[in-house]
Amino acid sequence: MELTFLGTSASTPTVFRSLPAIALRLDEGSTILFDCGEGTQRQMMRCGTSFMNVDKIFISHFHCDHHLGLSGLLQTMNINSRENQIDIYGPEGIEELVKNILKTGYFKLGFDLMVHTLKDCDRVSRGNYSVECRENNHCKNSLAFAIEEKPRRGKFYVEKAKNLGIPPGPLYRRLQEGETIVLNGKRIEPNMVLGPPRKGRKVCYSGDTAYCENVIELARESDVLIHDSTFSDDMKEEAGKFGHSTATDAAKVAKAAKAKKLFLFHISPRYNHAKVLENEAKKIFENSTVAEDFMKYRIRYKD
Amino acid sequence: MELTFLGTSASTPTVFRSLPAIALRLDEGSTILFDCGEGTQRQMMRCGTSFMNVDKIFISHFHCDHHLGLSGLLQTMNINSRENQIDIYGPEGIEELVKNILKTGYFKLGFDLMVHTLKDCDRVSRGNYSVECRENNHCKNSLAFAIEEKPRRGKFYVEKAKNLGIPPGPLYRRLQEGETIVLNGKRIEPNMVLGPPRKGRKVCYSGDTAYCENVIELARESDVLIHDSTFSDDMKEEAGKFGHSTATDAAKVAKAAKAKKLFLFHISPRYNHAKVLENEAKKIFENSTVAEDFMKYRIRYKD
Repeated sequence: MELTFLGTSASTPTVFRSLPAIALRLDEGSTILFDCGEGTQRQMMRCGTSFMNVDKIFISHFHCDHHLGLSGLLQTMNINSRENQIDIYGPEGIEELVKNILKTGYFKLGFDLMVHTLKDCDRVSRGNYSVECRENNHCKNSLAFAIEEKPRRGKFYVEKAKNLGIPPGPLYRRLQEGETIVLNGKRIEPNMVLGPPRKGRKVCYSGDTAYCENVIELARESDVLIHDSTFSDDMKEEAGKFGHSTATDAAKVAKAAKAKKLFLFHISPRYNHAKVLENEAKKIFENSTVAEDFMKYRIRYKD
Repeated sequence: MELTFLGTSASTPTVFRSLPAIALRLDEGSTILFDCGEGTQRQMMRCGTSFMNVDKIFISHFHCDHHLGLSGLLQTMNINSRENQIDIYGPEGIEELVKNILKTGYFKLGFDLMVHTLKDCDRVSRGNYSVECRENNHCKNSLAFAIEEKPRRGKFYVEKAKNLGIPPGPLYRRLQEGETIVLNGKRIEPNMVLGPPRKGRKVCYSGDTAYCENVIELARESDVLIHDSTFSDDMKEEAGKFGHSTATDAAKVAKAAKAKKLFLFHISPRYNHAKVLENEAKKIFENSTVAEDFMKYRIRYKD
């Protein structure tokens, strides 16, 4: 799994930050987009992230900066002869948004586009992963998302296998794949050489939100939490007024959720040097980083 | 007058080219935009062209690549507390486009937005200039535009003034401004020291078009012609099929119109090295240049 930050600004772009969009490349090869601000297709081109591999797009809410890139992206997929279906997910209103986009775009798609309306606690289960959503604390019809891989097989204990007299080779693989084998007339079950199933990797994206208990629940023990961090502490009041978080809020959520890594995201254009936000967050949650456009982050298995 | 090419690609952006948008800064300080592809607002930020100075936007037609940046630009003007009216001009259908944009944008503007539908041969006269439009040869409801300054005062002949015994100083200025003066009881009319009115500067933008007589008429003796040059000669058939021009077509139009300078614009993403287009055009019209993103061109008075 690899994250690419395609746009990290808030409300308006800046010279260095494009509007919100995050690509998550899955091991199976497809890419999920979280939000799709204006300019997303070009940001993908600029950092070599294939837009043709995108097969699911999750839109957190309907403020302009989070979805204006959809129309151009769909159009460019079309020009490039896309045939595979694309699925767009979002809170109530997503159908109307997509309808308007197709109307304003003056084009006909040559591939299927499915729109899915999500509400609090909905879970989308696909292939090897699921995406859960929770209402956050920003505006009406605004969601946070968490994608989590299904549990994977437990660890293979070579010593246990050796003690059972299993020779290294194809039998190891069969046991790892969950098959019971018979060796010298003895049945060997996978659980005799495997540890318990291990949790899959988990990434949570808060969307735009003020500090929110739902996001803490959703982000529980995630490998990565990408959280609204529009302002620094000196703009605490402004943040609350507009349903946004400070870097401190984001760090508190990461700490309470026991996340492993926090990316501060949705940075107000007022911060030319966003390290001030990172420094604030680090006081509460050490593993904090300000997301920058084109930053990539590989999410590895921890065990 | 200064042109800035904000986006020079065709259909889809590339790493080096954003989607069609041209800013024309007028001497009076305001800026006119011709087309407004996705990403235009950020391109303006990246090259230091103020988006708040834009007060008129001309949309050539309704293919996606020419207008998807409108919504974000209007929204960003709004966030930046714009109060001045903005005028948007385009062919039949422009009202519906703007209506959809405002609906999809989920925002309310804090400034007036006037939409003007133009048809073949319409002329918009504003301040010191007028913009004329002609149907071009691309699709239904597609226009080319020419902006032309009103004629300016004739040349001031210092020798004639001296011969009439006028002392250098404020009297010169009054005559230049068209005032009749009385010197030693003698009436001196401005035309006694001034040449005939001189033509204002003229810039023509073809929009997307195949070779088109209307564009030649519109571009007649323009200082700058910005012309569709999507393809090179080896794609001549493709160009015709989709209502686009080759670099050779563009050069022929520039030559027939007796334009002074040609910018090749709307470059297909297939051309990594667009000099091939420039070389083709130069064979017919020497003063040809491929427009690149962020290129600026100052249009000076020729006399």
